[in-house]
Amino acid sequence: MFIENSGNIRKSRKPTSDELIKGIRSGDQTALARAITLVESTRPEDRELAHLILQRTADNSRKSVRIGITGVPGVGKSTFIEAFGGMLTARGEKVAVLAVDPTSTLSKGSILGDKTRMVTLVNDPNAYIRPSASGANLGGVARSTRETIALCEAAGYGIILVETVGVGQSETTVHGMVDFFLLLKLAGAGDELQGIKRGIMEMADSIVINKADGENKAAAKQAMQEFRRALHLYPPKENGWTPKVLSCSSLEKEGIEEIWQVINEYVRDTRASGSFDRKRERQNKNWFLTALESRLKEHFYNHPRTKKAMNELLKKVEQGVISPFQAANELMEKVSGILK
Amino acid sequence: MFIENSGNIRKSRKPTSDELIKGIRSGDQTALARAITLVESTRPEDRELAHLILQRTADNSRKSVRIGITGVPGVGKSTFIEAFGGMLTARGEKVAVLAVDPTSTLSKGSILGDKTRMVTLVNDPNAYIRPSASGANLGGVARSTRETIALCEAAGYGIILVETVGVGQSETTVHGMVDFFLLLKLAGAGDELQGIKRGIMEMADSIVINKADGENKAAAKQAMQEFRRALHLYPPKENGWTPKVLSCSSLEKEGIEEIWQVINEYVRDTRASGSFDRKRERQNKNWFLTALESRLKEHFYNHPRTKKAMNELLKKVEQGVISPFQAANELMEKVSGILK
Repeated sequence: MFIENSGNIRKSRKPTSDELIKGIRSGDQTALARAITLVESTRPEDRELAHLILQRTADNSRKSVRIGITGVPGVGKSTFIEAFGGMLTARGEKVAVLAVDPTSTLSKGSILGDKTRMVTLVNDPNAYIRPSASGANLGGVARSTRETIALCEAAGYGIILVETVGVGQSETTVHGMVDFFLLLKLAGAGDELQGIKRGIMEMADSIVINKADGENKAAAKQAMQEFRRALHLYPPKENGWTPKVLSCSSLEKEGIEEIWQVINEYVRDTRASGSFDRKRERQNKNWFLTALESRLKEHFYNHPRTKKAMNELLKKVEQGVISPFQAANELMEKVSGILK
Repeated sequence: MFIENSGNIRKSRKPTSDELIKGIRSGDQTALARAITLVESTRPEDRELAHLILQRTADNSRKSVRIGITGVPGVGKSTFIEAFGGMLTARGEKVAVLAVDPTSTLSKGSILGDKTRMVTLVNDPNAYIRPSASGANLGGVARSTRETIALCEAAGYGIILVETVGVGQSETTVHGMVDFFLLLKLAGAGDELQGIKRGIMEMADSIVINKADGENKAAAKQAMQEFRRALHLYPPKENGWTPKVLSCSSLEKEGIEEIWQVINEYVRDTRASGSFDRKRERQNKNWFLTALESRLKEHFYNHPRTKKAMNELLKKVEQGVISPFQAANELMEKVSGILK
């Protein structure tokens, strides 16, 4: 169980980076939580510390399995993760559950915000649940989630579940940070294929019809057939994987093991063919470039000389004394000491 | 009429920045076209020249009127712009027509690409038509369009029409660079309010039912009523403007003058209340910040030391020797001479 002020690091004192790094490596959830808070922060001194911790805890083994989970609100993502995560920890796995939810500022945490929906998993010593960072745009949330994945892996979590809700580009973002992408669907809503963004169907490595219990069982079976037919319309995946359509009842914990078997099959196949590694390589390159860009901006905008010049020029632009392009020129010249 | 190799500047020789600046100021379309090509380029030496030209031609008078025009494919944007632009030049106005179309790479210029659809306007000495820059993402197209607006204004174009098609975020982008936003719609398609993104209706300062001619006239009248009712559901605009619903026939050139009257009314009202200027101020601040960011990235990524370090680190990241975050750290340290 994760309680903020338990563990070796007390809330009263700011832990050093050495303490945090040691804590993360030994799997201490309090140290992990503290480090993630640094990663989510935009304060320059916190970012510096975060960079140092990420530098020194890096785990480049690629042993973990990162699974993206998406689906519209009401599809039962929390209940599914509760059942799926519980099954995994019962098998001896350590599971981290993260979320990419750029709407959480507005909706006060529409996903994972209410941990009480995952009662068992929250109290499971082998599970670590972290809601989405709030107050940031998708780019910011994506950056901190990528860094959080790295920290969780360093803390020994072998399975990372990244939950997202179908808002804007968030699925594409999550797809770009996971090995396996799982789309949760409901049956019995009448028009099964209605309202699915084409892009999301194409991204899915597996479609799982949730709530296949009681009266829904027959409808779930029919929905599975329809999705299988629909998936035939798409070109085959580059890595040779044929997306699997499954059903489960998160409530009655039926079909959950089968999903894990499919994911295992995927991981085994793609590791053997090398496409698992190639995907990670592509993602790593992309992570590097986005991390670099955010580092560059942090460095530039946090510099006192930039701040001073920026304030003056914003006023001039507002008053219409100079054009936006003139102001950009002037600023680049004024801070030429920062940029050589 | 605009012919690439007419005017004072010949294709055979690269014009100097002084020649281009002089040419733009005197309204020479060849000089303008050359400068826009520099603005659209990503080559460092072209960008340097573009910055210099933008610096020295800046017109901060805010006398121009920038009008965004959007609508689904088939609504008749080209025909409308042909009729609307022709009416404006007949009144002695100088009109520039630009496009924001991030899909043009794929579709080879779905809008404005085929200038033959605007036969009269293309041959009008007081009109300048420039298709969307191709080969760039929305951010890149937006940047070059903003800079192109500034160049056209410096060349004496008092009315800037920015056409866009409803793809992704392009309307929002165009809305952020114009004074007045016009949404073209069709009537008689049965379910009038179907398929309109809510955000776009809210952005519109006027909705114009196009193709209100022949058998369509009655349907257009009905559509106008429906849109008026729909617009009542939205909260009033901050600047006090009530969006107007109009109809026109671009083919028969009916109702075109009325649209211009509405825009004039809008410009008069908002200039009197100060909200015209406030909108420009907000936009200018935003243009400044985005211009600055692209300048910063250009400077950083084009630097030889960055390029060298980048290549080495990309390889290490790919091989999994170091993590993406370690690589970002290392690069920032290696190029610390560029960033002080």
